[in-house]
Amino acid sequence: MANIAVLGYGTVGSGVVEVITRNHDSIAKRAGEEINVKYVLDLRDFPGDPVEKILVHDYDVILNDPDVSIVVEVLGGINPAYTFVKSALLAGKSVSTSNKELVAAHGAELIAIAKENNVNFLFEASVGGGIPIIRPINQSLTADEITEITGILNGTTNYILSKMSDEGSDFETVLKRAQEKGYAERNPEADVEGYDACRKIAILTSLAYGKQVDYQDIYTEGISKITDIDIKYSKKMGTPIKLFGTSKMIDGTVYSMVAPFMVDSEHPLVNVNGVFNGIFVNGNMLGDTMFYGKGAGKLPTASAVVSDVVDEVKHNGTNIMMIWEPEKMVLGSMDNFACRFFVRVKDTTSKDTIKELFGEVEFVEVEDVSGEFAFLTASMTQKEFEEKSVKVDMINRIRTTL
Amino acid sequence: MANIAVLGYGTVGSGVVEVITRNHDSIAKRAGEEINVKYVLDLRDFPGDPVEKILVHDYDVILNDPDVSIVVEVLGGINPAYTFVKSALLAGKSVSTSNKELVAAHGAELIAIAKENNVNFLFEASVGGGIPIIRPINQSLTADEITEITGILNGTTNYILSKMSDEGSDFETVLKRAQEKGYAERNPEADVEGYDACRKIAILTSLAYGKQVDYQDIYTEGISKITDIDIKYSKKMGTPIKLFGTSKMIDGTVYSMVAPFMVDSEHPLVNVNGVFNGIFVNGNMLGDTMFYGKGAGKLPTASAVVSDVVDEVKHNGTNIMMIWEPEKMVLGSMDNFACRFFVRVKDTTSKDTIKELFGEVEFVEVEDVSGEFAFLTASMTQKEFEEKSVKVDMINRIRTTL
Repeated sequence: MANIAVLGYGTVGSGVVEVITRNHDSIAKRAGEEINVKYVLDLRDFPGDPVEKILVHDYDVILNDPDVSIVVEVLGGINPAYTFVKSALLAGKSVSTSNKELVAAHGAELIAIAKENNVNFLFEASVGGGIPIIRPINQSLTADEITEITGILNGTTNYILSKMSDEGSDFETVLKRAQEKGYAERNPEADVEGYDACRKIAILTSLAYGKQVDYQDIYTEGISKITDIDIKYSKKMGTPIKLFGTSKMIDGTVYSMVAPFMVDSEHPLVNVNGVFNGIFVNGNMLGDTMFYGKGAGKLPTASAVVSDVVDEVKHNGTNIMMIWEPEKMVLGSMDNFACRFFVRVKDTTSKDTIKELFGEVEFVEVEDVSGEFAFLTASMTQKEFEEKSVKVDMINRIRTTL
Repeated sequence: MANIAVLGYGTVGSGVVEVITRNHDSIAKRAGEEINVKYVLDLRDFPGDPVEKILVHDYDVILNDPDVSIVVEVLGGINPAYTFVKSALLAGKSVSTSNKELVAAHGAELIAIAKENNVNFLFEASVGGGIPIIRPINQSLTADEITEITGILNGTTNYILSKMSDEGSDFETVLKRAQEKGYAERNPEADVEGYDACRKIAILTSLAYGKQVDYQDIYTEGISKITDIDIKYSKKMGTPIKLFGTSKMIDGTVYSMVAPFMVDSEHPLVNVNGVFNGIFVNGNMLGDTMFYGKGAGKLPTASAVVSDVVDEVKHNGTNIMMIWEPEKMVLGSMDNFACRFFVRVKDTTSKDTIKELFGEVEFVEVEDVSGEFAFLTASMTQKEFEEKSVKVDMINRIRTTL
């Protein structure tokens, strides 16, 4: 029997207890032995809840219990999660976490500590919720050099953009409704400004290339500037707007960013709607592949956490190879990243000026929008685009996959 | 350095050599040591080809060489593949194969032999080509009880159905063109009659439930009876026709089949077109997830084979747990499997007769089709449907996901 401790009895933590209870027998079969939740750590009490009897408030009880071989960290945030996880690994306990902030900030270090102590630090649930993506990158795509990872990594923003498109409503209206329904936090900044997706693409990129990608180095743009008029154009063009976290290897340099994109109708991620997540990977041998599923939610996330626990039970005493060195990866400058831009300008700029500045462009027209017009540029670098666009009365611009 | 031998220098075999050569350094990093192709077995000679120097015609050379720790079997078919693979495992060599016939017929036995000999028998490439699906089922979805696996598992039939829909052409015309382009075999029976998809869903179902599912027990219906008129109706209804291999757990019984389905527009597999494959899995905790990519082709398939080789190098001396017991799983009778049917009947049957027989139905009308009409039934079991439909002049019927 493997004894585990769950740190944090919030949404995911209670989900972990529920998954282990409900699928007890099938999990025992897959793990090769029974899994028992010996402790739940939380500052709160839960009178009447079945975990009441195993609830502890002091982490040292867990740390000092040699019977506990695996610690599940689902507290979120850097502190005290970092201290707890590090001390668990140093004490010879494996850790499974859903904590993307922790993994993005300290992944390389914690992986190294786990290796030194012959235990495991696994984090399948930190990206894409229940979607198997961390393990496939580590263990399945090993014959390939990864040339691109692009994901719809945040369900809240994908829900908002899908709703804006379905209903024609503006950003603020949809956000408010999403908050009422519990799909968006009261402080929605981490989601809508792309910070959440940024940490997730940092984790995926670090694993794909085996080096430390600092999330602070990733150009990040959220969706709060997307308006109902942008959506109108996107519908006309048949290119839904999605918030992408994306890394591309071009001529030996990796370019990484989080930004809204207008997505062409043939793209594997174009039909990933609502709260779903999708992660597209291109390998130099494999070609295109895509993983799709629920990127959040109590049980899907808990399912991924528990799959890590099962892996840790199976690999008791063996470190599962994971390549993420502390050496920092220098990302390519966004200045040199090229794509086609969709641009809206005030009609104080003439179409002739646009043609002079941008050369070959495609103008896009929609009904019921006045005082402005829009166009698609040819493919050009960010720098080139910025140099040209300072000379026009720009309202908004969105990158495209066209 | 790990020495491997490749059995068969056809499309996949030459792909394996190419992947290992081109991605030599990154693969060595992931595997923890260099991988060297020491032998290629083929009955033919390849004068001038780089493999000429390592080509052998006698399998015993490989079997008796203690330096060879891994055998890649990409011959296809049951014989001599089965004999070669079994003797390799018994000799303490791990095996990676793309051979779905072999795995479907002898998977349980070969997994048991590998376990006894502390080596591995891996077959990621046998289903879904390059798509990681075998390893995710074995190692990622371990916290879940799988309630459904449904896949578009055959690229040839998906290409044919996609083309019929795009072009309005009939089955024979599109098949002929697919054969000319090399997308379909000269003898297309294994693909178009669903036999290939049948072996693949048998493998996935065996792994999902840990027991032997005999492919002969799986109800299998191909696409050769799908006509351009069926496609016309499917387009009118917005429900593209796809060949599904599907297993569902309903009240503790698993129902498994291969058959064309009209797929509703919200289904995760509805946009899997052309030669692509997609595999949808529902877990009782995870909910819906989907894996998408190239289901065939030299390099995608070879990429999956080599990912198994990497896993075998990493697990030298350790058996990777895989649950597929020889105990036979009894599948539910198709008689009891319920769905909504799309039905075309000659207008010698009256609509009133249909209403009397089937109760509430939805009639579907398309232009330029005469002498017949079509309708959608309510959900009913296969048995119930067959009892009713013998009383009408039926032209064709297709299951739906509606």
